[in-house]
Amino acid sequence: MATATLSIDLAALVRNWKALDAKSSSETAAVVKADGYGLGVQRVGRSLANAGVRKFFVAATEEGADLRAALGPGPEINIFSGHMSGDTDMIHDLQLTPMINSIDQLLRHVESLPGHDFGIQIDTGMNRLGMEPAEWAALRDVAEKQKPSLVMSHLACADEPDHPMNAQQLKVFKEVTAGLDAPRSLAATGGILLGPDYHFDVTRPGVGLYGGFPFADAEPVAQVAIPVIQCRDLEVGETVGYSNTWTAQRPTRVATIAAGYADGLLRAMGSDMQVYHGSTACPVIGRISMDMIGVDITDLGEDPRELGILTADQTVDVLADAAGTIGYEILTSLGNRYNRRYIS
Amino acid sequence: MATATLSIDLAALVRNWKALDAKSSSETAAVVKADGYGLGVQRVGRSLANAGVRKFFVAATEEGADLRAALGPGPEINIFSGHMSGDTDMIHDLQLTPMINSIDQLLRHVESLPGHDFGIQIDTGMNRLGMEPAEWAALRDVAEKQKPSLVMSHLACADEPDHPMNAQQLKVFKEVTAGLDAPRSLAATGGILLGPDYHFDVTRPGVGLYGGFPFADAEPVAQVAIPVIQCRDLEVGETVGYSNTWTAQRPTRVATIAAGYADGLLRAMGSDMQVYHGSTACPVIGRISMDMIGVDITDLGEDPRELGILTADQTVDVLADAAGTIGYEILTSLGNRYNRRYIS
Repeated sequence: MATATLSIDLAALVRNWKALDAKSSSETAAVVKADGYGLGVQRVGRSLANAGVRKFFVAATEEGADLRAALGPGPEINIFSGHMSGDTDMIHDLQLTPMINSIDQLLRHVESLPGHDFGIQIDTGMNRLGMEPAEWAALRDVAEKQKPSLVMSHLACADEPDHPMNAQQLKVFKEVTAGLDAPRSLAATGGILLGPDYHFDVTRPGVGLYGGFPFADAEPVAQVAIPVIQCRDLEVGETVGYSNTWTAQRPTRVATIAAGYADGLLRAMGSDMQVYHGSTACPVIGRISMDMIGVDITDLGEDPRELGILTADQTVDVLADAAGTIGYEILTSLGNRYNRRYIS
Repeated sequence: MATATLSIDLAALVRNWKALDAKSSSETAAVVKADGYGLGVQRVGRSLANAGVRKFFVAATEEGADLRAALGPGPEINIFSGHMSGDTDMIHDLQLTPMINSIDQLLRHVESLPGHDFGIQIDTGMNRLGMEPAEWAALRDVAEKQKPSLVMSHLACADEPDHPMNAQQLKVFKEVTAGLDAPRSLAATGGILLGPDYHFDVTRPGVGLYGGFPFADAEPVAQVAIPVIQCRDLEVGETVGYSNTWTAQRPTRVATIAAGYADGLLRAMGSDMQVYHGSTACPVIGRISMDMIGVDITDLGEDPRELGILTADQTVDVLADAAGTIGYEILTSLGNRYNRRYIS
């Protein structure tokens, strides 16, 4: 077998949700967009539903359809992009709840699906999704009569607890929702950690469920082990990989392992990376190829059958640092080629 | 609909293959590893087979199984990672041809599947896959009696025509295969462009088929159009996106579009990117989120329904430059969330 194994620990996922639920002073939902942050929305969704999650959030209606197929009727599936043109039938037939972002969307929704559940998304300063406060002020009376299932906003800087934007958005959210007779939601993972002022009626953790920053206590959920295709000895001066970027400074034993950037092991990780045989680190050498990575196993003293790149210690956030990005992107990039093994 | 559309022009793919075939002084195969460079190995494989391709290359046996399911019996499916432990049954049952990389693999192959097709991969300096010349010298007589279907190597620096490594690897390949009674292959896309000295009996274009560098004359194969979720007006001083990285310097109209790094639009592209409404460029503003991107549409004078990020002009190589990577990685990162539309 020359495909790597992606192990997904659904029990750890559930423990992360429970830990975040314990920190939330309100109902704790779960964000499972982007195919459950790359880990498989159907398995992830079912595990969380079995653990007690009753509210889920996805980005697009099509993602809601995949999740509904896994969960069956019952759990609430909320769509961040709201009620987009062409989505009315799916929203109706699959009992999805669009988080309405604009007057256009609200009109589309109440005209095409009167009485069908919806939420309202209000922009409190990120300027990405949701009605502007002025739009909302004009619509609030009408919208409130339709009994929105949720009124929500999203924090732009919650991963930076000291950023003044957090308090600023909280203030705006309180102002625009004061006296509202509807459940309210502001916090994702970062917002939960900012404390109960940010929790309102529903929290919506995403990345923390999957073991990523900013939830420092998260258990790792995803691990990747890559089979070794072959090993060889190099003399001093020999080069490895595309464009000869690495040159042997000592007699070196090199393993070629069977995964690369097509498996989401971003090329930008370059050769600052290590891979692991048990707890022994082996340096990545040369450029990451599409399907292969070179590894210096000289100091290992044996030829391993596989090497770990995403491990209990070398988490998504460590890989993200090496690639100059964030753990979220590591997770959502993992892709299809893995042999996926779910642990529950 | 809040998922982006990935259009895959199979007719352009076939024209790219024909153009590279016309440049090859030998049989022209096709490399369709990593799910056909992210564009769907089954559709890509069938289109190329219909155009006359008789030899395909994939990275792993599992990929060969997907391709065989699409092609049926007949076309040769070669496996770069060779004959890995555990793959014998698939190699046998699906008539796959492993490109043997080591003595271990050769023993595994001839002992478990005597008489079954195989090729030999020789390392000529990249130190990634293939037998070392000394190993090969020791095995050559034995291997030749088993009639390998191909003897191949891979160039480390073919995308840089002036790199001395090209001539060096060519020299080694000629030396170690001199007098051999078996078809030989050295060139992928870059090698084809280096000229007929590099072509031998079989060329193996990959990235050039899919419209990428170094095949400058390639037609674009993949295009991405992203629906607009909503538009809003910003005042001077308002910020957009995570961590408030962008601040309006003028009254600005912003569109939020429904794709992000979970769709392979690498976060590293940052905000140096443009997206297009027809031929009009609109700057990306703020950080690329998992599912959304902000765009300055002030100068457009209208609210578009969708915007193009991968277009006939803004190719995979332009996106790659913005992200500090190569077109190959843009293609293989595109992912699953797109509404895929095949044009043939």
